[in-house]
Amino acid sequence: VSWVNNQWVLRHEASISIDDRGFRFGDGLFETIRICHGKPYQLTKHLERLKQGLTALCINYDVQPLTAAIAELIERNNLEEGIVRIIITRGKGGHGYLPDPGATPTAVIMTNTPPTLPAKPISLWSSSYQKLSPQQQPTHCKTLQGLTSTLARLEAQENQCQEALLCNHKHYIAECTSNNIFWIKDKQLYTPSLNTNIIGGTVRDALLRLSPYPVHEGLYPLKTLKNADAVFTTNCIALCAPVAKLEPLGWEWSSKTYTDELNQLLKNDMESYAA
Amino acid sequence: VSWVNNQWVLRHEASISIDDRGFRFGDGLFETIRICHGKPYQLTKHLERLKQGLTALCINYDVQPLTAAIAELIERNNLEEGIVRIIITRGKGGHGYLPDPGATPTAVIMTNTPPTLPAKPISLWSSSYQKLSPQQQPTHCKTLQGLTSTLARLEAQENQCQEALLCNHKHYIAECTSNNIFWIKDKQLYTPSLNTNIIGGTVRDALLRLSPYPVHEGLYPLKTLKNADAVFTTNCIALCAPVAKLEPLGWEWSSKTYTDELNQLLKNDMESYAA
Repeated sequence: VSWVNNQWVLRHEASISIDDRGFRFGDGLFETIRICHGKPYQLTKHLERLKQGLTALCINYDVQPLTAAIAELIERNNLEEGIVRIIITRGKGGHGYLPDPGATPTAVIMTNTPPTLPAKPISLWSSSYQKLSPQQQPTHCKTLQGLTSTLARLEAQENQCQEALLCNHKHYIAECTSNNIFWIKDKQLYTPSLNTNIIGGTVRDALLRLSPYPVHEGLYPLKTLKNADAVFTTNCIALCAPVAKLEPLGWEWSSKTYTDELNQLLKNDMESYAA
Repeated sequence: VSWVNNQWVLRHEASISIDDRGFRFGDGLFETIRICHGKPYQLTKHLERLKQGLTALCINYDVQPLTAAIAELIERNNLEEGIVRIIITRGKGGHGYLPDPGATPTAVIMTNTPPTLPAKPISLWSSSYQKLSPQQQPTHCKTLQGLTSTLARLEAQENQCQEALLCNHKHYIAECTSNNIFWIKDKQLYTPSLNTNIIGGTVRDALLRLSPYPVHEGLYPLKTLKNADAVFTTNCIALCAPVAKLEPLGWEWSSKTYTDELNQLLKNDMESYAA
């Protein structure tokens, strides 16, 4: 089942109005949360980011009931391992783009089984698409504005790559379409700082907290990656996913030793959350 | 009624799946078409822009059946004057942002009665938001990525303005949230050229075709407007809407004489389309 505006609905029957601004304008937010042993990993961090997004989008929605709804949804769907997805939109109404201040936000929660992850280290495509800037719209929260990411993934796929790496409007390394990026050089861990307009991922946070290597967050041009010892992406589904190559530049890395080590730390952390 | 994936559905019951990528990611396009005497004004131009958008977004949808569906919808809803809205999304499915190449696009058509237009010349707010660039996503078609426009309209409203004027990333005048912008200086008509990342509006096209004044399209910094004789916005709902003021700069214009004249030309053109 899914949870749609406080109602339990069969997933394949779950729907929203064609007048919903989520559908009309992508006017909303989402979160994707990892379920480990039936417990949502780092739920508080996800809800905190969702609240920041609601503030940035001026959507008046109280996230408080989501915690109980997620717990009940996991139980109803008997989900031990998988993903919970929350979508909050501004609801219906408004005069064109101008919202109706009295609109009731739409809230949807659904679960998915864990997706199949690539068995081998992935190839990244150096994207022709640029990450949006905060002068254009809020970039620190997971909005429903997924077109750049969608087109970047299609471009990567056309070039036989599994993910796309985007730089920001100042040409600094930003993030992948649904992952943060990290690299290791001389036993030091590097990642773009939050002011590159990236999403502060929850696994990014966990890794900064757990890393056995000294951590550096900063503004890095793409060429920084050329001499890295290892490169990997992070998100709550794949945790650390080793990167083999950046195309079309042809830069290659052996990243798996590092990601195996770091994934063990993350898995231990997940286990302790679920305990 | 509304038309949802080839079916006639009561408007208040018309819905789409929570798995639709239009809802999940704003992964689609729309068109808003003016109905005059029961006929869609400049339908061919709208469908042409929609086709360009489908190509840009790599959505494989044949617009050909839309013409008959729109005509039948107008008849079923007995709509003499109003608006038809088309929404096409990439449909369901995919692995996160990566689309499912076999997905069937979602197609929705709905009608609305004409909205109430402001009785007086409007005030524009010089937006703190910046128009997106083509390096980030297609900007020449009407995508469902409406967050920047939504937030810009909210900001304008907070400042007692009815619309927002956005510049592009190079600080040239671009467009309003759902209108193009024009101005008149010394009996010459000016408007930003298409390479300012704007939507080429259908009424913008009509005005360039019908204008009794010599037309200039170009890259203009915001200060160009200060010495204009008249400023107005265009879209298919309001046609030419006179602008009284640009806030917070306090620049003022008497635009109504010009918009009355140009609206008469546009109305004549609409009548001849409908005839």
